[in-house]
Amino acid sequence: MGLSISGATRLFPIYGDPIAQVKSPAGLSAILAARGIDALVVPIHVTAADLPAFVDGARRARNIDGMVVTVPHKPASLALCDRVTERARYAGSVNIMRRQPDGSWAGDNTDGHGYLDGIAAEGFVPEGRRVLLVGAGGAGSAIAFEVLARGAAMLAIHDIDEARRDGLVARLSGRFPGRVGIGSADPRGFDLVANATPLGMREGDPYPVDVDRLVATQFVADAVTKPEIPPLIAAARARGCATMPGSGMFNAQAELLVDLLTGVRAIA
Amino acid sequence: MGLSISGATRLFPIYGDPIAQVKSPAGLSAILAARGIDALVVPIHVTAADLPAFVDGARRARNIDGMVVTVPHKPASLALCDRVTERARYAGSVNIMRRQPDGSWAGDNTDGHGYLDGIAAEGFVPEGRRVLLVGAGGAGSAIAFEVLARGAAMLAIHDIDEARRDGLVARLSGRFPGRVGIGSADPRGFDLVANATPLGMREGDPYPVDVDRLVATQFVADAVTKPEIPPLIAAARARGCATMPGSGMFNAQAELLVDLLTGVRAIA
Repeated sequence: MGLSISGATRLFPIYGDPIAQVKSPAGLSAILAARGIDALVVPIHVTAADLPAFVDGARRARNIDGMVVTVPHKPASLALCDRVTERARYAGSVNIMRRQPDGSWAGDNTDGHGYLDGIAAEGFVPEGRRVLLVGAGGAGSAIAFEVLARGAAMLAIHDIDEARRDGLVARLSGRFPGRVGIGSADPRGFDLVANATPLGMREGDPYPVDVDRLVATQFVADAVTKPEIPPLIAAARARGCATMPGSGMFNAQAELLVDLLTGVRAIA
Repeated sequence: MGLSISGATRLFPIYGDPIAQVKSPAGLSAILAARGIDALVVPIHVTAADLPAFVDGARRARNIDGMVVTVPHKPASLALCDRVTERARYAGSVNIMRRQPDGSWAGDNTDGHGYLDGIAAEGFVPEGRRVLLVGAGGAGSAIAFEVLARGAAMLAIHDIDEARRDGLVARLSGRFPGRVGIGSADPRGFDLVANATPLGMREGDPYPVDVDRLVATQFVADAVTKPEIPPLIAAARARGCATMPGSGMFNAQAELLVDLLTGVRAIA
């Protein structure tokens, strides 16, 4: 890996519960090293009960300039930030925090950005297009905001938890009037079909949409990272669709996360 | 360096103020890597005012199993431990903490141990010998306890701060009756002459003892690590004495610190 460490090394924790499975410490540390920055992304295993005390403690370390947040702490960490971006507020969660000059934490959520950058890397741009999103949870909320912010003509949201679905539709309708509606598992008529549920992680999971109705002109994206090729993506590819599996979302975010951690881009 | 990092990497912070100058992150991380342990020693810059909140926050990180403490936080960290060793209590400070199975911090001070191991590596053993120690501060207190615990016949302590000197003599006399007394800058009659003051770090510092009275049969040791060969050591070598500069103390402690951090040796 070619990593090194010294007394002057700056640290960017990534915290979650569990944490041993995350790939960011290696991947993001390699990007920092490639940029010639003496800094490491280090894993921190912290439980929900210990989260506020840990985040307060980390604020005291003057060589910790920022942190990456992962499952399940993204929603709770929103409340631990002193200010957050609009997209983080709509997502209801943060996945990155940077310490500001006054010692406060600024939070952002790049999950939607990463998801759509990953899709763009495969050649699909949502502007003026019709999008079906399955899943109105944390990832889904972030992706929904970004789809609309990037100019989708219409976003239909499907979730088996109808209250959660309706809540997200209502929130987004205030911000993007007339472009948000309720969807179903039927993908017909959409240009982009986007899964933001965990369906496909476990063997025997149902598909998030009716894959028999997918056609080759549709783009199909998935947030699931394990397995590498989730069942939805495999089914879509079998029908000739262009696709982005969850790893595309992860890879597209890496440089952005490093930009935000190191302050190359501000959290604004 | 050949270091690597993953989500499963365990962390051992070393904290101080400042911290950029410390060599332990590289040195101790290399020892961990050589032992095949997926763990890193990482620097943390924390001020005195932020110390309690930082130590409490670090306690919450389940992959932080121990911490190394450096200047100026060794005395204050003693009070942040739930229990400490006898030698740490006599030193009035800790330089290492390990999280116990119940979540509490156990503290130890290995500075005296490292100092005398470094001297032993140069062939001098204090058992039955007469020792002059200059400096009754944190490092001096740790070294004084260890000198007596290793069976020195007599320890004379010199410090220009007489109250501090007398306090240390009184404390140690309770534990090692009849073997502790007051010394001066005159090294005549001692087998080991040990500096535990910072004298020699800055150009123009006076010598901690009257070097003109050193003779070749005496062993001279110094806690000063910068410059690599402090003036006292240079003067002693010019007179034919065997010596140990501060780097010997540092090197002798490294494997011990890793043993304690990783629990190979218990803090008992």
